[in-house]
Amino acid sequence: MSLIVQKFGGTSVGSVERIESVADKIASFRDQGHSVVVVVSAMSGETNRLTDLAQQVQQSPTPREMDVLLSTGEQVTTALLSMALIKRGLSAKSYNGRQVKIVTDSAHTKARIKHIDDQAIHADLAAGSVVVVAGFQGVDEEGNITTLGRGGSDTTAVALAAALKADECQIYTDVDGVYTTDPRVVDSAKRLNQITFEEMLEMASLGSKVLQIRSVEFAGKYQVPLRVLSSFVEGPGTLITLESDNNMETPAVSGIAFQRDEAKLTIKGIPDTPGVASKVLGPVSDANIEVDVIVQNAAADGTNDITFTVARNDLARAADVLENVKQELNAVEVLTDDAICKVSIVGVGMRSHAGVASKMFATLAELSINIQLITTSEIKVSVVLDEKYMELAVRGLHTAFGLDGEPVLAQA
Amino acid sequence: MSLIVQKFGGTSVGSVERIESVADKIASFRDQGHSVVVVVSAMSGETNRLTDLAQQVQQSPTPREMDVLLSTGEQVTTALLSMALIKRGLSAKSYNGRQVKIVTDSAHTKARIKHIDDQAIHADLAAGSVVVVAGFQGVDEEGNITTLGRGGSDTTAVALAAALKADECQIYTDVDGVYTTDPRVVDSAKRLNQITFEEMLEMASLGSKVLQIRSVEFAGKYQVPLRVLSSFVEGPGTLITLESDNNMETPAVSGIAFQRDEAKLTIKGIPDTPGVASKVLGPVSDANIEVDVIVQNAAADGTNDITFTVARNDLARAADVLENVKQELNAVEVLTDDAICKVSIVGVGMRSHAGVASKMFATLAELSINIQLITTSEIKVSVVLDEKYMELAVRGLHTAFGLDGEPVLAQA
Repeated sequence: MSLIVQKFGGTSVGSVERIESVADKIASFRDQGHSVVVVVSAMSGETNRLTDLAQQVQQSPTPREMDVLLSTGEQVTTALLSMALIKRGLSAKSYNGRQVKIVTDSAHTKARIKHIDDQAIHADLAAGSVVVVAGFQGVDEEGNITTLGRGGSDTTAVALAAALKADECQIYTDVDGVYTTDPRVVDSAKRLNQITFEEMLEMASLGSKVLQIRSVEFAGKYQVPLRVLSSFVEGPGTLITLESDNNMETPAVSGIAFQRDEAKLTIKGIPDTPGVASKVLGPVSDANIEVDVIVQNAAADGTNDITFTVARNDLARAADVLENVKQELNAVEVLTDDAICKVSIVGVGMRSHAGVASKMFATLAELSINIQLITTSEIKVSVVLDEKYMELAVRGLHTAFGLDGEPVLAQA
Repeated sequence: MSLIVQKFGGTSVGSVERIESVADKIASFRDQGHSVVVVVSAMSGETNRLTDLAQQVQQSPTPREMDVLLSTGEQVTTALLSMALIKRGLSAKSYNGRQVKIVTDSAHTKARIKHIDDQAIHADLAAGSVVVVAGFQGVDEEGNITTLGRGGSDTTAVALAAALKADECQIYTDVDGVYTTDPRVVDSAKRLNQITFEEMLEMASLGSKVLQIRSVEFAGKYQVPLRVLSSFVEGPGTLITLESDNNMETPAVSGIAFQRDEAKLTIKGIPDTPGVASKVLGPVSDANIEVDVIVQNAAADGTNDITFTVARNDLARAADVLENVKQELNAVEVLTDDAICKVSIVGVGMRSHAGVASKMFATLAELSINIQLITTSEIKVSVVLDEKYMELAVRGLHTAFGLDGEPVLAQA
């Protein structure tokens, strides 16, 4: 008899047939005696349909009205799923963000949850109802409808699980769990039974985008056990936990993440004085360009090089900014490279295993892959490589760190 | 500087282009210095789309969830129209039923408005905003979403106009006003500049269905001046008022209403004793069959005939009920006729003009049309005729009572 929060995304509820099949799944959980709170997204395609309508009216739609518009998508799904559950003889009731109520700040289209009033839901759960909640939306203190931004339904699910002190928060997606790396690149990639929040954050931000990163942060902060499963295939999925079960047994590396579409900029021959890094990177950030890897090398001659990476489609703008900086600092030159990638090994096991980084470098050396940049954190080592070596590097590292499993079927 | 409530139906907001044109209309009212509250329906087709989805899930959808589902349709329109107004440089804000708030009872899918809390709207109007309200919906005391039934947006508009003490409630439709009769039957039918609530009720219930009858009753009760206009054609429309301007000048008859699809039943030879009418009509009403005209004739021989009309598709069920009644009361026979129609002359002027009814009968006699039944009220005389004479009768009466105008263009 546990309390489970289950979240089904747009693809999982994309048609009446799929809503019926979600209802079957929920019914079987109820049969096992669990209490269930379900969070749903808009049916796939609906959010785009509404966004298109808005953009036909207003090129940059007024955020408050955009939220009024988009929030209807999830509300439609809650009603249809509740009907499907009631048809199965279950008691069920839909809730929109205001009815829960999920109180947010007033930052329309990207609101943050402030608190959740779970009184009404608790009463319905106690009465044996399945509670069906519209994801992605809330209400501000003045009663305006707000939304949490794309993918915000994951956040709704985790926040509800935290507020209700649920035993588990299950996120149903179109993949059956978190993999050691992308199975489209390495066909022997393995599903992980378990991964820590920290690892998941590194994996997600590095390109294994299974869950919205905010929801993972949220789950970590409130210690909500989070499970990623497939809506379409039976299986245990991947459990995301606070700490790995047993550090002794933990493999050094849990997964290999990678990121394409990166670009690299170097400004050479700047003075090696305090504050110079901020003089270079301040204007970049002022231009709203997100910087990823940053490496600074002081040369013996009292000058300095700074290299950093940005998303490839920000490269032109970033180069313009750097040209100005070059004039100002009397730097020697600005170099750019738009054919790079980033490959990372991720694992909490690194903390207790020595030599993980050097094993990575050795593996790449054996494959004759030149490393352009290196950055490290406590649970991650990232290298920047020539883009054309990406698959080769990922496969080599996957094997070297003992991650290969049976080849998996192609993922949807 | 008056306060106007304007209601636009589904056809008027059926596409982005039409929403833009509604926004133009509202902007021109604002330019004239009026305060404007706009009530909108769902975009045409949307309510059917949602109803279809629901019926794919549940043959008889749970009413509470049906309201959650359907109420999204109007909410979408409020957001899009607000965006269109903001694009025109106006201040505008959408409201759903809960945000207004429009408090109803809990009779899902056919809720009745209990009261309206207009505080928030007043504040926005005072600040110069156009207030855009989702029609058709409200919220019950427990915060559940309710809807007022099909056509309920008219009711929302009138109720808001009453609550806000608006100077006028304008209902924009696809016709440009109320006509002396249906222009599809009489091509010289004239648009009425003015009609009383009582006349409008008689016209509406008799088939000239321009406005939802509940909204007319509501407007009459709260003395809200109501105007029916076209969304597509400029013009003054028809003003519906409490009393006609000047009784001396009022024509005897304002319009000719008619109803097809009626059927007639007669039970002959029932005992002429007190309570016999209720013994006949009680079981009919118990079977949820709505009865229209009722005529009772006591014969000299101490027996009695009762004749009444019902909607044609209720005829078979009504006949079954009457057969049972016949057994019980030892009546002689039950006769049915499914080829009848009802034609009525309507006008508050009848109160001060003698001989209106006899002029009607004389007109029909001249046309050799046999009258089967006659009923009268203070402002209406109705006759039941053989269906095949309907057009002939309507045209003849339209001319006889001086209603003919210039032939109008075909109505949409």
